[in-house]
Amino acid sequence: MKILKLLILTLSVCASSVWAQTMLVEKQQFSLNNFQTFNGSTIDTVNIGWEAYGELNKDKSNVILITHYFTGTSHAAGKYAESDPLPGYWDAIIGPGKAIDTDKFYVISSDTLVNASANDPNVITTGPASINPRTGKPYGLTFPVVTIRDFVNVQKALLDSLGIKKLHAVVGPSMGSMQAIDWAVAYPDMVERMVSVIGVAESDAWLTAALEKWAFPIKQDPNWQQGNYYGKEKPITGLTQSLAIITQEAMHPAIFNASNPNHTALQKEPLQDINASYAVVDWLYGAAEKRAEVIDANHILYLVRACQTFIAGYNNDLAGAMKQIKAKTLFLPATNDLLLFPAMAQKAHELIGESSQYDEIEGMWGHLDGIFSIQDKADAIRTFLEQ
Amino acid sequence: MKILKLLILTLSVCASSVWAQTMLVEKQQFSLNNFQTFNGSTIDTVNIGWEAYGELNKDKSNVILITHYFTGTSHAAGKYAESDPLPGYWDAIIGPGKAIDTDKFYVISSDTLVNASANDPNVITTGPASINPRTGKPYGLTFPVVTIRDFVNVQKALLDSLGIKKLHAVVGPSMGSMQAIDWAVAYPDMVERMVSVIGVAESDAWLTAALEKWAFPIKQDPNWQQGNYYGKEKPITGLTQSLAIITQEAMHPAIFNASNPNHTALQKEPLQDINASYAVVDWLYGAAEKRAEVIDANHILYLVRACQTFIAGYNNDLAGAMKQIKAKTLFLPATNDLLLFPAMAQKAHELIGESSQYDEIEGMWGHLDGIFSIQDKADAIRTFLEQ
Repeated sequence: MKILKLLILTLSVCASSVWAQTMLVEKQQFSLNNFQTFNGSTIDTVNIGWEAYGELNKDKSNVILITHYFTGTSHAAGKYAESDPLPGYWDAIIGPGKAIDTDKFYVISSDTLVNASANDPNVITTGPASINPRTGKPYGLTFPVVTIRDFVNVQKALLDSLGIKKLHAVVGPSMGSMQAIDWAVAYPDMVERMVSVIGVAESDAWLTAALEKWAFPIKQDPNWQQGNYYGKEKPITGLTQSLAIITQEAMHPAIFNASNPNHTALQKEPLQDINASYAVVDWLYGAAEKRAEVIDANHILYLVRACQTFIAGYNNDLAGAMKQIKAKTLFLPATNDLLLFPAMAQKAHELIGESSQYDEIEGMWGHLDGIFSIQDKADAIRTFLEQ
Repeated sequence: MKILKLLILTLSVCASSVWAQTMLVEKQQFSLNNFQTFNGSTIDTVNIGWEAYGELNKDKSNVILITHYFTGTSHAAGKYAESDPLPGYWDAIIGPGKAIDTDKFYVISSDTLVNASANDPNVITTGPASINPRTGKPYGLTFPVVTIRDFVNVQKALLDSLGIKKLHAVVGPSMGSMQAIDWAVAYPDMVERMVSVIGVAESDAWLTAALEKWAFPIKQDPNWQQGNYYGKEKPITGLTQSLAIITQEAMHPAIFNASNPNHTALQKEPLQDINASYAVVDWLYGAAEKRAEVIDANHILYLVRACQTFIAGYNNDLAGAMKQIKAKTLFLPATNDLLLFPAMAQKAHELIGESSQYDEIEGMWGHLDGIFSIQDKADAIRTFLEQ
């Protein structure tokens, strides 16, 4: 009985401790009319979701902007409800007393344009799946090509609307790092610090072709219909394949194999039937199909293009762009990243010069170390934000 | 004029030197009836092409078998005609006086079952594109799943037919390394030396899923029709995509980017039109479409499955299989290989134990260093073959 009581006491303490740590957050909407895109188009109305953690101080000088990754959303930390199974993706480093300390900073994060998860009730975005107010129908491929710079400019308008004129820092992983770097180039007097996690400063030939691999299965799906699938069968097969490729490419073989410890090459069904599948393939595609429920296929195509057209500064002069940065910069690629190789971050870091800081996240996840192993760099990020 | 004469003289010397070095080779056919596959099926007649370089000595003790890679053929060295633009893929190390010295060795190389290039006039293979003698129609998906062990056993039958009872060595790159390793396990008393170049001893969970990515675009192509496309429209779009993925995955970003020095992220057409393509994508897919002319889509599916079912020894006990090897072994993975990582070859090497030798091919090609940088290991291979 004593042991049982001790256990209950321990559990209660744990529960209350979790209770105390759960940061509840709320989605808000920002709307913007007549948004001019980088390629010269106009979007009549942009609606995006955003959320914030911590309190904005009086002189609005304690703002940190978090920019999300390719399949990510504005939900960087906390939970919408106590019952949520998981908190936001960077909850390990964002919160009270954490590396990005919400007791000190007002941390703000917004959904990008053409956000992948257009059908997620917690996401607000504008893209091909949105209703074009001029026609009353979804834009489909009539939506203009948008760029990382457009994502930045929507965020800028959001901050303007809140009267925020300085960013203590902008911090983002992967495609979020593209935004963070471009922020520092586009608005050098506004950005005081920039942290690029598992990021790159441009899409090189290799990355541009690799990204095409994510678009192809969607375009090849007979249900895609040049993007006109709204209200009809969705291109789920192609979208699932695209998401399966993205997932595998974000994982290093070490973690992929560790996640499938029972895999054996020689299995009866695949050996007998060319159409039979391996359990590991079903696992990968099954997870992708589940994710596909809230993801819009056209939005993936637009995100691919936003990444393909990315070069910080947007004048095909990366060296010149890097020289425009006034922010203190910290690059944190992942050593085992096989998607955005550390050499790519190192190139940007070196173009900035001596003032830039560089460190690598070690881990077995590969690209996903930028999400799942970020706590390993919590101290480095905390220290950088205090400099 | 003196300079011009000198130039002509130099060119003549070069030309005659090339002339002297050109090894002309001839394709031969080997046929085998009632071939029993590893999965218990029977193929009524197997026809495969083979070629040989050098002379078989009296006691038939100077034989080296070369096993080819995934999209490769038996054409490992020499030319079919002086006018051929390129020699076989390993001509840098196979020939008179070269690392695999045809003045000493009788080097033999055969097309595998389900060879990718079923429509190449220089390839003889048996697979889904072959006529099933029982029906008078192409096998399509009624062709049995075949394994790397089946490739080995067809080669064994070919050697038997020539009265060859010992292999001085078996040497192969990539999928050819799978064959080489399995040869050493399946026929330990016959194989004296084994060289695994950019190879693996089993398909792990990660590789099995990665290979599925090569099969998917073919299966998704509406023209695929469950493999029944013979005499109709071929699944060229899916096959092209598959070959584009294979090509990119075999190349390290360093060489991929060096091959596209004029790429810029910001280009007018892709920025304005979501359906517009990048020059680098057109380059990759254009080359793949050209290659697709001689490649059969079903054969790619069967090669994918042959690789997925691969574990040397074929009893899901890699450690046990490696202990059965009596051959001297040399593993030569490529340091920058992002498809079959050096760690995979190292695992097999370590399972064999102290007697095994290991070295890495340095280069910027990645996986393709096993083909294009093989001359860097010419001395290592020559020395190993003399041990």
